[in-house]
Amino acid sequence: MPLPLAARMHDIQPFHVMELLRRAHELEAQGRDIIHMEVGEPDFPTPQPVIEAALRFTHGGRVAYTPAMGLPALREAISAFYRTRFAAEVPASRIVITPGASGALMLALALTTDPGDEWLIPDPSYPCNRHLVRSFEGRNRALPVTAESRYQPTAAQVEHAWSAHTRGLMVATPSNPTGTLLGPDELLALNHTCRRHNGVLIVDEIYQGLTYGVESSSALALFDNAFVINSFSKYFGMTGWRLGWLVVPAGYEREVEKLSQHFFIAASTPAQHAALAAFGPDTLAILEQRRTAFAERRAALLPALRELGFVLHTEPQGAFYLYADISGLASDAETLARRLIEEAGVATTPGLDFGQYRATQHLRLAYTTDTPRLLEACQRIAGMLAQP
Amino acid sequence: MPLPLAARMHDIQPFHVMELLRRAHELEAQGRDIIHMEVGEPDFPTPQPVIEAALRFTHGGRVAYTPAMGLPALREAISAFYRTRFAAEVPASRIVITPGASGALMLALALTTDPGDEWLIPDPSYPCNRHLVRSFEGRNRALPVTAESRYQPTAAQVEHAWSAHTRGLMVATPSNPTGTLLGPDELLALNHTCRRHNGVLIVDEIYQGLTYGVESSSALALFDNAFVINSFSKYFGMTGWRLGWLVVPAGYEREVEKLSQHFFIAASTPAQHAALAAFGPDTLAILEQRRTAFAERRAALLPALRELGFVLHTEPQGAFYLYADISGLASDAETLARRLIEEAGVATTPGLDFGQYRATQHLRLAYTTDTPRLLEACQRIAGMLAQP
Repeated sequence: MPLPLAARMHDIQPFHVMELLRRAHELEAQGRDIIHMEVGEPDFPTPQPVIEAALRFTHGGRVAYTPAMGLPALREAISAFYRTRFAAEVPASRIVITPGASGALMLALALTTDPGDEWLIPDPSYPCNRHLVRSFEGRNRALPVTAESRYQPTAAQVEHAWSAHTRGLMVATPSNPTGTLLGPDELLALNHTCRRHNGVLIVDEIYQGLTYGVESSSALALFDNAFVINSFSKYFGMTGWRLGWLVVPAGYEREVEKLSQHFFIAASTPAQHAALAAFGPDTLAILEQRRTAFAERRAALLPALRELGFVLHTEPQGAFYLYADISGLASDAETLARRLIEEAGVATTPGLDFGQYRATQHLRLAYTTDTPRLLEACQRIAGMLAQP
Repeated sequence: MPLPLAARMHDIQPFHVMELLRRAHELEAQGRDIIHMEVGEPDFPTPQPVIEAALRFTHGGRVAYTPAMGLPALREAISAFYRTRFAAEVPASRIVITPGASGALMLALALTTDPGDEWLIPDPSYPCNRHLVRSFEGRNRALPVTAESRYQPTAAQVEHAWSAHTRGLMVATPSNPTGTLLGPDELLALNHTCRRHNGVLIVDEIYQGLTYGVESSSALALFDNAFVINSFSKYFGMTGWRLGWLVVPAGYEREVEKLSQHFFIAASTPAQHAALAAFGPDTLAILEQRRTAFAERRAALLPALRELGFVLHTEPQGAFYLYADISGLASDAETLARRLIEEAGVATTPGLDFGQYRATQHLRLAYTTDTPRLLEACQRIAGMLAQP
């Protein structure tokens, strides 16, 4: 007899990059040096003040559950950060601490998605979005986005795609994999469209803080009726701690609390105590130095890649990703990605992980490793491309 | 316009005890001393060797994502623990590390539950079970269980309840809230019934290790086709770390890996490194001392409660809960629970949190506080009951 398996599992795909990563690890085990440009994880350690806060707390040994919504002091700290950094008034009562942004996304979708509900999701975008929609029996409706709109959906496109089954729209700013932002006017227009249909807007601000040449911002400074996802992983350098948060619109506080009780009991207690130090001036100074480092890497990598024939149709201004058109270099991105590992020792992420639209002609390259390594990667790629 | 809200949210209930707990905290803020017998959390700190492992790891500052299935060394350690402690052969490849047992339960249900699928769930049982079933669009079919079968479902009962829509059965041993166990013959019979229908058996072993007068055991020593949920929270004393695991039957490894990627990315890295010390002889010695302490508390509390008129229809042998019939003391448990807080300063959990069946005539009492406090609680209750 076959193993009982839910139908959703036939639609939920693994990260394609994992297979490439397995190959990279095999090669590394054989002594090959691999430059990792596939990793969505900053190479910096957790900031020292955050580590020290974690050590101080853990030392006591009393690591009990926190309330389901999170440590009150941490929710207040996030609320204060919105006020001082983004001029957004977000009461702590609307902030839920979650096990990573993944947990925040699960809560937002489980709260609002009925079976068959359609979510408008840009293609390309973060793969978990569509798989979590499917997990709660919603349906993914891909919105192909191009460089003409900086890989972001437009209000006209959303309006056109909206159907009787549409529950809402998910956007990300900065976006993964494209690194592009939504401006305030664009966000306002998208929110207006959602509101007119009594739909739900989810704004992924996981890469908030990581912008270059523009000030970082929050949708919450513009309106308060969206679900906003955030994370301590990226800007705050706390990936392995698995800590994020969700801001819910007023009226959802009790609903999200009961769901959080059942899904998580609560987020990790040591991580929450560590994160209390994330907003201190000494931590923020470290984080701003790192942002400068990312900006320098980006400034070095972008022209070097262009010289090699990678095409960036639009200049990304955030996150730590470049979404490059490789159609001048190879017939498809997956083949190129495999060649890059085998022949150049450079790991990248094929576009197929982020959707279907023109996916086979794009690679995502992360600058989560230092400039000398990034430039060495480019040299190796140049060598590889010079081969017949 | 109303806020968009998924239909599931109308069925998903909060923990009822939370309201009582809020009242308890109010009274405490007024200076009242409250004895907490509602808490499902051991009062012992995280074992010192586990704390030290956490400190050693955290000190380095490199807190990166682990693989989605968890740290290989931790999965191997759990596999070895099954072998040495329970004579069960469980390859590490079938073990997934999760953010608490909550995460393990979510994975097992999302992997196997289609919309409309029915799960047979004992009533009373852990409330998250039915709410997580509902979250993935399954349906809860309550199996009323009584003291005659030690609050566990029988194979005959399961056979009788099985319908064309039934996807599987969830059991817990030791059970929350009743503290009762399933014997090997009973487990084998339940598994046989599920297998005959090509159904899924989920065995919750979250309280494994916490048994009194009987050896602790694992269903995995009897068969390998069940999903088994476990946790570092209870026996291992690591609640706030939010770490658990799921054992999947062979054939589900790749399916559970992709789901774990999307749901969690991975469990907390510091927690996983801390848990590597959970199976060392020094930690296990501490945990066995604590088990002795729980046994002593239980031995003191049981007769004292019986003397007060609380009726235990069957002797619980595990976890740290007593599920007491209060029908000789009050007309309903919720009213009694409220009186106990207001007049005696004792917090308990009303049966309604665990289901519907005879729920209003039961309270759950946890012995997660020390014997003198437990006996003081009994004295205070005696004083209260002596009042008109």
